[in-house]
Amino acid sequence: MKIVDLKVTPVAFPDPPLRNSTGVHEPYALRTIVQVYTDDGLVGLGETYGGSVMASQIEGARPAILGEDPYGLERLRLKVGSPRTFGAIEVACLDIIGKATGRPLCDILGGRVRDAVPYSAYLFYKYADEDGKGEVGSAEQMVEQARDFVRNYGFKTLKIKGGVLPPEEEVETFRALREAFGDGYQIRIDPNAIWSVETSIRVIRKIRDCDPEYVEDPTWGIAGMALVRRSVDVPLSTNMCVTDFDHIPESVRAGAVDVILSDHHFWGGMVATKHLAAICASFKLGLSMHSNSHLGISMAAMTHLASSIPNMLYACDTHYPWAEEDLIDGGKLTFNDGCMRVPDGPGLGVRLDEDKLQEFADNFRLRKQLTRDDISEMKKRDPNWLPFRPRW
Amino acid sequence: MKIVDLKVTPVAFPDPPLRNSTGVHEPYALRTIVQVYTDDGLVGLGETYGGSVMASQIEGARPAILGEDPYGLERLRLKVGSPRTFGAIEVACLDIIGKATGRPLCDILGGRVRDAVPYSAYLFYKYADEDGKGEVGSAEQMVEQARDFVRNYGFKTLKIKGGVLPPEEEVETFRALREAFGDGYQIRIDPNAIWSVETSIRVIRKIRDCDPEYVEDPTWGIAGMALVRRSVDVPLSTNMCVTDFDHIPESVRAGAVDVILSDHHFWGGMVATKHLAAICASFKLGLSMHSNSHLGISMAAMTHLASSIPNMLYACDTHYPWAEEDLIDGGKLTFNDGCMRVPDGPGLGVRLDEDKLQEFADNFRLRKQLTRDDISEMKKRDPNWLPFRPRW
Repeated sequence: MKIVDLKVTPVAFPDPPLRNSTGVHEPYALRTIVQVYTDDGLVGLGETYGGSVMASQIEGARPAILGEDPYGLERLRLKVGSPRTFGAIEVACLDIIGKATGRPLCDILGGRVRDAVPYSAYLFYKYADEDGKGEVGSAEQMVEQARDFVRNYGFKTLKIKGGVLPPEEEVETFRALREAFGDGYQIRIDPNAIWSVETSIRVIRKIRDCDPEYVEDPTWGIAGMALVRRSVDVPLSTNMCVTDFDHIPESVRAGAVDVILSDHHFWGGMVATKHLAAICASFKLGLSMHSNSHLGISMAAMTHLASSIPNMLYACDTHYPWAEEDLIDGGKLTFNDGCMRVPDGPGLGVRLDEDKLQEFADNFRLRKQLTRDDISEMKKRDPNWLPFRPRW
Repeated sequence: MKIVDLKVTPVAFPDPPLRNSTGVHEPYALRTIVQVYTDDGLVGLGETYGGSVMASQIEGARPAILGEDPYGLERLRLKVGSPRTFGAIEVACLDIIGKATGRPLCDILGGRVRDAVPYSAYLFYKYADEDGKGEVGSAEQMVEQARDFVRNYGFKTLKIKGGVLPPEEEVETFRALREAFGDGYQIRIDPNAIWSVETSIRVIRKIRDCDPEYVEDPTWGIAGMALVRRSVDVPLSTNMCVTDFDHIPESVRAGAVDVILSDHHFWGGMVATKHLAAICASFKLGLSMHSNSHLGISMAAMTHLASSIPNMLYACDTHYPWAEEDLIDGGKLTFNDGCMRVPDGPGLGVRLDEDKLQEFADNFRLRKQLTRDDISEMKKRDPNWLPFRPRW
């Protein structure tokens, strides 16, 4: 079996004005859809980060992958190089292998240890949508948003995207959520490293009696995280200071984090994420999963992957509920009781809706952005905006 | 696809009186052959450590594996528990998957990055064989043995099984080998942790000008290895103090070893060995491969595995040349230019010779040993023998 073609389609889809420490989501979120074709007529799907730059990088891998066997993942990894580019292509190859063998993709990764993967409610402070509704800027409004997520999807874990309001206000939000949701719910917060070391310590001390599951990236860097961690008794997680296998030794040495957030899109694919899981098991680190705005191909990939990792004991993050539409056949995948069932195979178990792919590709062509830019979007609302880090 | 039967066959095959720090090899080496049967008529092969105890342990996994899907390796790993038992069963499952997909086993592990895997000449001090020939007890005799290995197999790496003679004599052997074999050859020595920390330091200083590739387990334990390592500038390797994922953090912390010797037979299988390789890559440790006396099923498995690990940059150890016969169809696999080509699939690419299996099983039944026992064998030659550690 040989790879004979690669199709890279940058797409864009409507996204609400969700706030974070850098600024605010643009009206359209960007993704890249990858289709890998084999000489026996199979097509594998992949999805990764968006924008023209990412699409070009993947397109640049064409000479490295044409003529290669989709089973030859170690060769492909060496030839492609960039973990992000390889990650997208690897998912497509694993989808092909699943289709070739008539197996769900998780079986190519060692099989599932759970039939349904728990996800978290990804809660955002946000501006009002275009229709003027839906602003979330207070603890009360965040509790309302959480109630909607829990009612609609059954999530048992709440994740606050913090780093937006002054820390005291976010502490209020955390408290309000804990008061509204009892012991049956886990709550985590992620201010995207916008707090200084000292602020992190003070904030975490204020929320520790609210039983945070973990605090994700309160501050910047392995050095900063280690300084915070030695002063608090709350587990810290990261998807910012440990984002590559080369970062792990220093993080372990420094005792910087308790939990690493995996993400097959930037850790170099699904098999690499399984390696990461083994490292976490060896070094007694927890393992969770990070998310960016994404569509159904990534959703399926994340679910297959998490289903096959025994030590994925945390609910995985996902932005998926924020996407109103999808480009997969049959529309959006659904959550039940806070979980997503592993899609039936073969492969990822999802197919492209070609009309929707066209529509989302048109969305992108109208805008043609190099990359995601939350800062410029925020400057439209506040011309003086600067993404301080730390801000507080 | 479901596992419907398991056949566990303890076998024994003639082995020369090879010496090591514990004693001497018994006249018959022990292995266990595993056959896993599926409901669609496929049979997967595995091979691991020998003796009645090991065979019973694998037999004990029967209820855990019957009815399971061979693709469900993560479930099986959890259910089987023991890494050694799972390792044997996992190879058989991967062999089944290879056969089911018509793929060589290495393709199930990410594909090969090399078509032929380099192995080392495993040199032993030894007593004379039954015909009175072949004693190796001096530097000169070891050089002769090495010449035979190089002539017959083309190996470019020489591994001395040390810990047998007083350290000064083994230093002489190392020197003689380096004088006989030039820069095109790598030389390593493994005294199986029989030297004290101080002796290790002194011995390594004496052989360092002979450019040892690495010294394997000069002394016992992570603590001991770390004490040696801080005093010498020669890389240390181990298959004794880091033999489990749980040992790695302390070894890293202590800076005890430079190279970990993998062995899918006790690290929990081939996929686990790929995880180990990823850990070594992450922590900048070297990766090599350990061997015990083994037959062709293990030989094929080791070769598929090493072919699929990019950072397996050392020649792998193997006892295979010491086995006069094999129980695989067509007889022993062959080395060319010091390498073994990856067997053509599907799966492991080897089949059992049922007559030989029967013969080797009869060998075992005549002796019925619980486990390998080099100490008792040595006591036949020296009733006062005690396997001191350290001895020097």
